[in-house]
Amino acid sequence: MITANSNYQKLSSSYLFVEITRRINEFTATKTHSQIIRLGIGDVTLPLTPSIIEALHQGIEDMATSKNFKGYGPENGYLFLRKAMAQREYGDLPVDIDEDDIIVSDGAKCDVANFQELFSQDITIAIPDPVYPVYVEANVMAGRTGEFSKGRYKGLTYLDAHMENDFLPPPPSEKNIALIYLCFPNNPTGAVADHALLTKYVNYALEHKALLLFDAAYCHYIAKESTLPRSIFEIPGATKCAVEFRSLSKTAGFTGLRCACTVIHDDCRIFSSKSEEIPLKPLWLRRQSTKFNGVAYPIQRAAQGAYSEQGWHEIQGQIAYYMKNAEIIRKAFSPLPDYSVYGGVHAPYIWIETKHDSWELFTRLLHETSVVVTPGAGFGQNGAHAIRISAFNDREKVTMACSRITERL
Amino acid sequence: MITANSNYQKLSSSYLFVEITRRINEFTATKTHSQIIRLGIGDVTLPLTPSIIEALHQGIEDMATSKNFKGYGPENGYLFLRKAMAQREYGDLPVDIDEDDIIVSDGAKCDVANFQELFSQDITIAIPDPVYPVYVEANVMAGRTGEFSKGRYKGLTYLDAHMENDFLPPPPSEKNIALIYLCFPNNPTGAVADHALLTKYVNYALEHKALLLFDAAYCHYIAKESTLPRSIFEIPGATKCAVEFRSLSKTAGFTGLRCACTVIHDDCRIFSSKSEEIPLKPLWLRRQSTKFNGVAYPIQRAAQGAYSEQGWHEIQGQIAYYMKNAEIIRKAFSPLPDYSVYGGVHAPYIWIETKHDSWELFTRLLHETSVVVTPGAGFGQNGAHAIRISAFNDREKVTMACSRITERL
Repeated sequence: MITANSNYQKLSSSYLFVEITRRINEFTATKTHSQIIRLGIGDVTLPLTPSIIEALHQGIEDMATSKNFKGYGPENGYLFLRKAMAQREYGDLPVDIDEDDIIVSDGAKCDVANFQELFSQDITIAIPDPVYPVYVEANVMAGRTGEFSKGRYKGLTYLDAHMENDFLPPPPSEKNIALIYLCFPNNPTGAVADHALLTKYVNYALEHKALLLFDAAYCHYIAKESTLPRSIFEIPGATKCAVEFRSLSKTAGFTGLRCACTVIHDDCRIFSSKSEEIPLKPLWLRRQSTKFNGVAYPIQRAAQGAYSEQGWHEIQGQIAYYMKNAEIIRKAFSPLPDYSVYGGVHAPYIWIETKHDSWELFTRLLHETSVVVTPGAGFGQNGAHAIRISAFNDREKVTMACSRITERL
Repeated sequence: MITANSNYQKLSSSYLFVEITRRINEFTATKTHSQIIRLGIGDVTLPLTPSIIEALHQGIEDMATSKNFKGYGPENGYLFLRKAMAQREYGDLPVDIDEDDIIVSDGAKCDVANFQELFSQDITIAIPDPVYPVYVEANVMAGRTGEFSKGRYKGLTYLDAHMENDFLPPPPSEKNIALIYLCFPNNPTGAVADHALLTKYVNYALEHKALLLFDAAYCHYIAKESTLPRSIFEIPGATKCAVEFRSLSKTAGFTGLRCACTVIHDDCRIFSSKSEEIPLKPLWLRRQSTKFNGVAYPIQRAAQGAYSEQGWHEIQGQIAYYMKNAEIIRKAFSPLPDYSVYGGVHAPYIWIETKHDSWELFTRLLHETSVVVTPGAGFGQNGAHAIRISAFNDREKVTMACSRITERL
């Protein structure tokens, strides 16, 4: 008899953004409403820049000729892209990362979800709360948690992020954590860890033979003049105990193109059950070469276009545009009594703490203003009285959404 | 301490095609040699057809404008593509499949490798031998097998395919198998099951509450005039107990573009540990919406282009071209004493049985003729004295490879 993976039944509900879409559809089907403005899921809206479009067209022309046609590519990505990624993502940072440390993929979400497959079933895991749900749910599906109860999964260690610690939780007090998920600039809170905090995490990992999975999908939203760390690899010792995920989704508007990378230094190690060191990179390459078949060639060319001199310049304009949106949202909410505004300075997400239940506030904003935000509860217990607002939208819509909301709240 | 998934250590060797590449590189680096002709990995060589190229360019132009820009798409694929897939893949067959049964992905390899996640850890599995290694290795990584010993993994049931049964093994004699992997037209042997054999498998699955995973990646290589089944869903009852994987990789030259689909009917069921029926489709959608982020929009447009009237016509020309290659290869080997030729009639793979050890023959052909084939042993114990030759290459190279080989053997 073919039986189901019973861990799926533990999942608290449908994937957050699927549930939000369901509620929007229910609302729009039954009520008259103004134009819906989506500040929820955090999807880019600006069209791809000219350098990217040109690189795509050229990549496609290659596919039209016998001479330049490309079938299966290298499992870890084309060298031209890995070189461009290493240079542009890490070239200006004090880190020891090169093209051989880069493994190209079709998204940080897939990578961060699949990465846990490399570890044994019984590892202990620490996850921030609030958190991007994928980190948790991938481990629930893999059977590494108990049941969902009172907003949390049994068997996980939660790193509490809240107003009292500026959403920057310290490393766990427990000494037996094996795997720690981190994301800075943070989704959903917009908080950014400084060198001192990240050093504590790296030292924890080195001391306790743990591994850090560091999601840096939003690193290019840190303002140029800031000295905040862009990469976990800026911290001494991190190459040995950390994996970093980077993505072009929010950096270059690739949510509809799909290109990202996982970065693993040769020094990075995990352990056998007998405490022998095992190099991590070959395990991920083995996983990817068996279960993945690479990123489309024209998309890899597009990514190369994004990393070009001109392409990178164009992208900075898009990031500035979204960050201006963030500023507008921050300014709209800041004067409101009973709402505390976080994030939106070095991150495209604004996190707003309230006294209201987050799904109730989500519903109220949807019904009264036709604006979609993300209920904080979708990110964990600590989001129960918060909403996340995304800065990814057209200026006009952001302004309209803000004026609708401030009129009502 | 962060410990490794010890199941990876059970993997018999590196992924087959990675190992082949390693051996080729070793050879080319140390020996003088003629131009290497690769009839190994089975990668298409013809450039994308004009309809696909045009659809790609148009898709990219959409991404260049605010009005038509696309970010995250629907998790199961754009409706325009699911409709085109349902119509073109199934419209002419006596099956009950529509666009809601189609879940678009970036490759049949990924899908077939990831699909086992939906099942409980202790299911019994039957896998043909020889077989596409990914079916096996995904289950090894997931811990569903014992150690590798004498060419086989303990804990798996093997369906022996060999000359005596024309590479068409009957369903297992054991009555407790939960999951059966099938692939017709077969990779690597090129064998194609008829309605009678597939009916036996479907009846087995219905009777024993099993599930069939049916890899139909090569179904469009079945000659037009043939009455052989193109889909498992042609068999009565299959919608309830089978999942089908289809791919544009070999159909339309998409190995470098990445687009495929998994097809699950609403009737398809698996079971809880208490034997209650559980619909399968929502589980796969949940897996994909959590761990995958869709196929690039321009690639989905390209697939739509392939399924257009003109696009489909163009593709038939490519399939005919590769099948002519298959005929040439069959004709070259058929007269040779000590070599028995299979496949290559309704499939792009030619399977050649010999008296030689398959890795030895691989090495001999590489060193003496600079032609790369795939050693049968890479597909299982029953391939120990066989090689697989792929029909995917330029005519000129196929002809040259055949004349080099026939001169030597």
